[in-house]
Amino acid sequence: MSAASREPAEPLVPVLAVVGVGLIGGSFAAALRDRAGVGRVLGVGRQAATLAQARDLGLIDEVASLEQAAQQADLIFLAMPVGATEAVLSRLEPHLRPDTLVTDAGSTKANVAAVARAVLGERIGQFIPGHPIAGAERTGPEAAEAGLYRGRTVVLTPLEENTSASKAYLTRVWECCGARVMAMDAEVHDTILASVSHVPHLLSSVFMWQVAGAHDSDLRMTLAGSGFRDFTRIAAGSPEIWRDIFLANRSAVLSELQEVKAALGRAEQALQDADGDQLQDFLERAALARRFWGSRSGLT
Amino acid sequence: MSAASREPAEPLVPVLAVVGVGLIGGSFAAALRDRAGVGRVLGVGRQAATLAQARDLGLIDEVASLEQAAQQADLIFLAMPVGATEAVLSRLEPHLRPDTLVTDAGSTKANVAAVARAVLGERIGQFIPGHPIAGAERTGPEAAEAGLYRGRTVVLTPLEENTSASKAYLTRVWECCGARVMAMDAEVHDTILASVSHVPHLLSSVFMWQVAGAHDSDLRMTLAGSGFRDFTRIAAGSPEIWRDIFLANRSAVLSELQEVKAALGRAEQALQDADGDQLQDFLERAALARRFWGSRSGLT
Repeated sequence: MSAASREPAEPLVPVLAVVGVGLIGGSFAAALRDRAGVGRVLGVGRQAATLAQARDLGLIDEVASLEQAAQQADLIFLAMPVGATEAVLSRLEPHLRPDTLVTDAGSTKANVAAVARAVLGERIGQFIPGHPIAGAERTGPEAAEAGLYRGRTVVLTPLEENTSASKAYLTRVWECCGARVMAMDAEVHDTILASVSHVPHLLSSVFMWQVAGAHDSDLRMTLAGSGFRDFTRIAAGSPEIWRDIFLANRSAVLSELQEVKAALGRAEQALQDADGDQLQDFLERAALARRFWGSRSGLT
Repeated sequence: MSAASREPAEPLVPVLAVVGVGLIGGSFAAALRDRAGVGRVLGVGRQAATLAQARDLGLIDEVASLEQAAQQADLIFLAMPVGATEAVLSRLEPHLRPDTLVTDAGSTKANVAAVARAVLGERIGQFIPGHPIAGAERTGPEAAEAGLYRGRTVVLTPLEENTSASKAYLTRVWECCGARVMAMDAEVHDTILASVSHVPHLLSSVFMWQVAGAHDSDLRMTLAGSGFRDFTRIAAGSPEIWRDIFLANRSAVLSELQEVKAALGRAEQALQDADGDQLQDFLERAALARRFWGSRSGLT
């Protein structure tokens, strides 16, 4: 889309459809609106109350069906639970205009790409898989905020059928939201996310489950402090969403888990040997790496 | 100390000595001062700059030596790294008045009690081991605040030589700081803390170490989000302090770690079997327990 081809008043996304107007979808709409990057916003979802709330909050202009979204939108952003991707794409596909672009926000990418390819067939070039790395502690449209993606990383895992123009366009849209865009293979994305997101969630949840099941769990909970609070915060996340993530990214999670267990075995051996130097060495490497990450990420 | 025996103007702690005027020691002094629970505060430490800062901040009235603290204080609060307990008690012991009470803030209790018993001999009744469960993300006197212990739990692990009067007195002092006091055996304390504090720290640090050592650690760090941030926050803690905690509580940590590894094995098996029901079951138990804890603890 060159400068010459754009009307002065035409926004980057003339008509946006958001499927699933919660934190992720609502914040996407809010960010584009905040930067005058969107004309009209259609909201699609299963729960009428949530859609009404999103409209009251000004996140969407009107409620639409998937069919209407496919017919009217220039860009469709899928932000519902990733397990619904196949059903949603199946209902969009027959009505999709040839110039409409579809993207998503799912936490795993190889499985989404496979599902999209199976459902969209020859229209697969219109779908670019994506994953904004942005917090999900709060949920629902009332948690949506225009600044959610500011300074955050958005990963796109483009397919070979995607055109350069569509990839450049989607990059501009995310940059309009304030995000940094990175492109990589879906398999690389899934392996990295298994490491920095899925395995920590598994460990945190397993730990919380073990403490809660102990015969003296009440006393344990009473003496749990701020370290426990931070370490277990992610374990409060949605069981359904995380079950689906683990199943979708099973082999990468299992493989990364072996790496962590091997490291744990070495630390355990140092502790068994009461080897203070080795304990301090690994604690120091961990502390330095964490402090460096904290100062760099802007997340601490 | 009955009402009749107290001068109207006499505070609960006429002279307090704080050894190690950082977050823990400084906040103890500040809390007592805030509630008019202390008369004069002596600050003891190795670093002149830290002591001067504590005095400038009004946390302490004057700098003192360990000998002066032993001679003048009614209550001595040990808040330096736990590894220094033996050396500090050895220097206090020859000068300790018979009515002076000594307590500490160390994260492990059986080893502190053993050290105190060896050093103090017949004066062991004057020492009551304690552990305030309060955050330690920030350090130093400038992090000290009068409200740090408000609503927090303080564990005392009294010795059989402690008198009822001294235990009741120390309980009143902590309650004056706004804390809830619980008494338990040192071994129970150490087992519980191994579970809710030391094992999480080990897992977080091992995980951080593993991620930082991966060949693609830069990319991993770039894609790490808020879940990673929370899960690894404790790994930034002091390597020296945590090495000492692990060594001091080695057998309880190793034993609790086996329990967590057994739970991890079950979760891993469910994932290997792609058993969605079992995955969701354990994720649900973890999420419910964490949400319940969060609503009850006031820490979320």
